[in-house]
Amino acid sequence: MDGLSLIKAASAIGAGLAMIAGIGAGIGQGYAAGKGAEAVGKQPEAQGDIVRTMLLGAAVAETTGIYGLVIALILLFANPLFG
Amino acid sequence: MDGLSLIKAASAIGAGLAMIAGIGAGIGQGYAAGKGAEAVGKQPEAQGDIVRTMLLGAAVAETTGIYGLVIALILLFANPLFG
Amino acid sequence: MDGLSLIKAASAIGAGLAMIAGIGAGIGQGYAAGKGAEAVGKQPEAQGDIVRTMLLGAAVAETTGIYGLVIALILLFANPLFG
Amino acid sequence: MDGLSLIKAASAIGAGLAMIAGIGAGIGQGYAAGKGAEAVGKQPEAQGDIVRTMLLGAAVAETTGIYGLVIALILLFANPLFG
Amino acid sequence: MDGLSLIKAASAIGAGLAMIAGIGAGIGQGYAAGKGAEAVGKQPEAQGDIVRTMLLGAAVAETTGIYGLVIALILLFANPLFG
Repeated sequence: MDGLSLIKAASAIGAGLAMIAGIGAGIGQGYAAGKGAEAVGKQPEAQGDIVRTMLLGAAVAETTGIYGLVIALILLFANPLFG
Repeated sequence: MDGLSLIKAASAIGAGLAMIAGIGAGIGQGYAAGKGAEAVGKQPEAQGDIVRTMLLGAAVAETTGIYGLVIALILLFANPLFG
Repeated sequence: MDGLSLIKAASAIGAGLAMIAGIGAGIGQGYAAGKGAEAVGKQPEAQGDIVRTMLLGAAVAETTGIYGLVIALILLFANPLFG
Repeated sequence: MDGLSLIKAASAIGAGLAMIAGIGAGIGQGYAAGKGAEAVGKQPEAQGDIVRTMLLGAAVAETTGIYGLVIALILLFANPLFG
Repeated sequence: MDGLSLIKAASAIGAGLAMIAGIGAGIGQGYAAGKGAEAVGKQPEAQGDIVRTMLLGAAVAETTGIYGLVIALILLFANPLFG
């Protein structure tokens, strides 16, 4: 077994592991969506403010999922370990 | 199999593992987004204070996700183990 | 395969594992952010006390994430196992 | 591959695993911070008692995170398995 | 590779895994701390009883974290598998 093949194999596993971070954004943003829907149901006249706050917070929650995606893409397409 | 290849392979897996930390920020910040949307629905006149508190707390929650990203980037681009 | 390479490879994986501790701080601090935003919406006049309590508690919750970061940095930059 | 290198490699992984204990303290202390902020918003005159109770409970929650840190430090710096 | 080295390596990983039990105590005790802070805010005159109950419950929650610590210490310092 040559070394480069081992690094490529491990990079495939690492890319997969990095995506597990997405669990958090999925749960958190779903909670935000639920609370947002609940709040719009109670105060329909405040729908604009509610949705804006929900989306602002959800955008922040997305960041760590994007970090995981970036690391996975680096491992696949711009892997510095293949030196 | 040479030693450097093994270290590089393990670094790819380690970088992926480090990103799993992002689960926490995703869940926590999503919770904050939901509570923020709910609070804005109830007290739209306090929207500025609510959103500022939400974002301040979310920024603190982001830190450990960034720690994970930093360790992953060190493992990929500035790995001290390749000595 | 030499022994030092194996230790270095395991250290890369260990550093990644240590960062997983950050999940806790992310969830907890996000919860604090949500409760803080909710409380500010209800009692805007107490915003200073609410935010101070939120940040004090969040700082305590950060500690175990920092412990993980310290162990990861020791494994990478000051590894006593390379003796 | 010599035996001592294998033990050292496993100790690096074990140290990383031990830090995962910190997830608990992070979640728990963040919950305490959120409830503390909420309580201070409702009864600002009881802020001292609330914060003291919050920090006392958070200190207890910190213990298992510190146990993990101690085991990780033993594995790295005072490892009895290297006999 | 001799057998004793393999057992010692596995013991190092096992000690790290055992500490993960601490997640539970951390979450549970933090929940107790939050509810305790909330209760002290509502009935400051009952602070003594509230804190005593909180600490009694937290002590019970600590037990499983201590079990994990004991097993980790046995694996490291009094390992019966090295016979």
